[in-house]
Amino acid sequence: MSLLEDLNWRYATKKMNGEIVPQDKVDYILEAARLAPSSSGLQPYQLLVITDKALLEKIQSIANNQFQITDGSHLFVWAAWDGYSHQNISEVFDKTTTERGIPKETMDDYKTRLWGMYEPLGAEWHATHAAKQAYISFGLAIAAAAEQKVDATPMEGFDSEALDKLLGLPEKGLKSVVILPLGYRDETNDWLINLKKYRTPKEVFITEI
Amino acid sequence: MSLLEDLNWRYATKKMNGEIVPQDKVDYILEAARLAPSSSGLQPYQLLVITDKALLEKIQSIANNQFQITDGSHLFVWAAWDGYSHQNISEVFDKTTTERGIPKETMDDYKTRLWGMYEPLGAEWHATHAAKQAYISFGLAIAAAAEQKVDATPMEGFDSEALDKLLGLPEKGLKSVVILPLGYRDETNDWLINLKKYRTPKEVFITEI
Repeated sequence: MSLLEDLNWRYATKKMNGEIVPQDKVDYILEAARLAPSSSGLQPYQLLVITDKALLEKIQSIANNQFQITDGSHLFVWAAWDGYSHQNISEVFDKTTTERGIPKETMDDYKTRLWGMYEPLGAEWHATHAAKQAYISFGLAIAAAAEQKVDATPMEGFDSEALDKLLGLPEKGLKSVVILPLGYRDETNDWLINLKKYRTPKEVFITEI
Repeated sequence: MSLLEDLNWRYATKKMNGEIVPQDKVDYILEAARLAPSSSGLQPYQLLVITDKALLEKIQSIANNQFQITDGSHLFVWAAWDGYSHQNISEVFDKTTTERGIPKETMDDYKTRLWGMYEPLGAEWHATHAAKQAYISFGLAIAAAAEQKVDATPMEGFDSEALDKLLGLPEKGLKSVVILPLGYRDETNDWLINLKKYRTPKEVFITEI
């Protein structure tokens, strides 16, 4: 199957059947999320994978009671850095140069320029910018799930402050951004399954210049 | 090739060789971008595809003079709605119900709830939220390009206000969000091509609960 076929196969599953997604498929989807590109390669986010049923029930209760959170077997939570700092930028650049076997100093100028640009932009810009990077990873996880014929429901409808507290994210300098339950569609009981996918028509979506 | 192989193959190409990406591949990548999921299915963005050389030169000059913009053959520009309104939300819902052959009224409650939620969040929240949706589409275009063995360089480093003006976006209620030049790597002259890809190690990136 091609990516386009996968994207046509997937849909925002509304009812999952409780079947458990095998670990190798979960790992595959996680790896796609990890390989996502990000601005200056900073990858300013982490991924939490939740399977603990009691915790999933608590999350469901602060996420408009969406059933996929407990009917799916795994919940992915993207948690972005709550801001950039000279330190967290430096750490990534130092690890990158070490991994590439090149001197740390190679990236000194770039690091200084980048922090010089980011610092004055302020905390809210930082958090939003980091969150946007997480959305690229989120998109790739959605594609990977579809390729593996695993259903997934992209979700923003949750109380992010309550989720942060529940997962202890503030202590780690993280903020929840977006979540993705994984599982398998309940073909009999999903009201959306037989409705046609709608997207902006090409002639409106695309402008060629 | 699998998506993971494609993601390992791709990199943020620094030097492209001027070769032109065939139209069928461009169309394929556009279609992946169009099929991206978005919050409530609103798809609050459009895509501009620029091949006009004079315009690409102007864009390069307001994008840190990044060479890929003119060495690539196509530039994709994601332009997000500058805000939600009762009208633009209604239009999407009306088209969706028409396409699905169900009564418009089916979505009235949802529409009212959604606008009731969005309206008080204000213009900046709207623009940021729309931009985040565009990043999902951006991620899928990056994956589609890699699958088609087309090189692409994700870019945020441009003067978005200047680009908006250049493309006449404010008149259309749009704001440029992120850009992606497409082309082919110059294997001889790209300084990044032989450097190892670095990503956050799994044990840091992933937390299992």
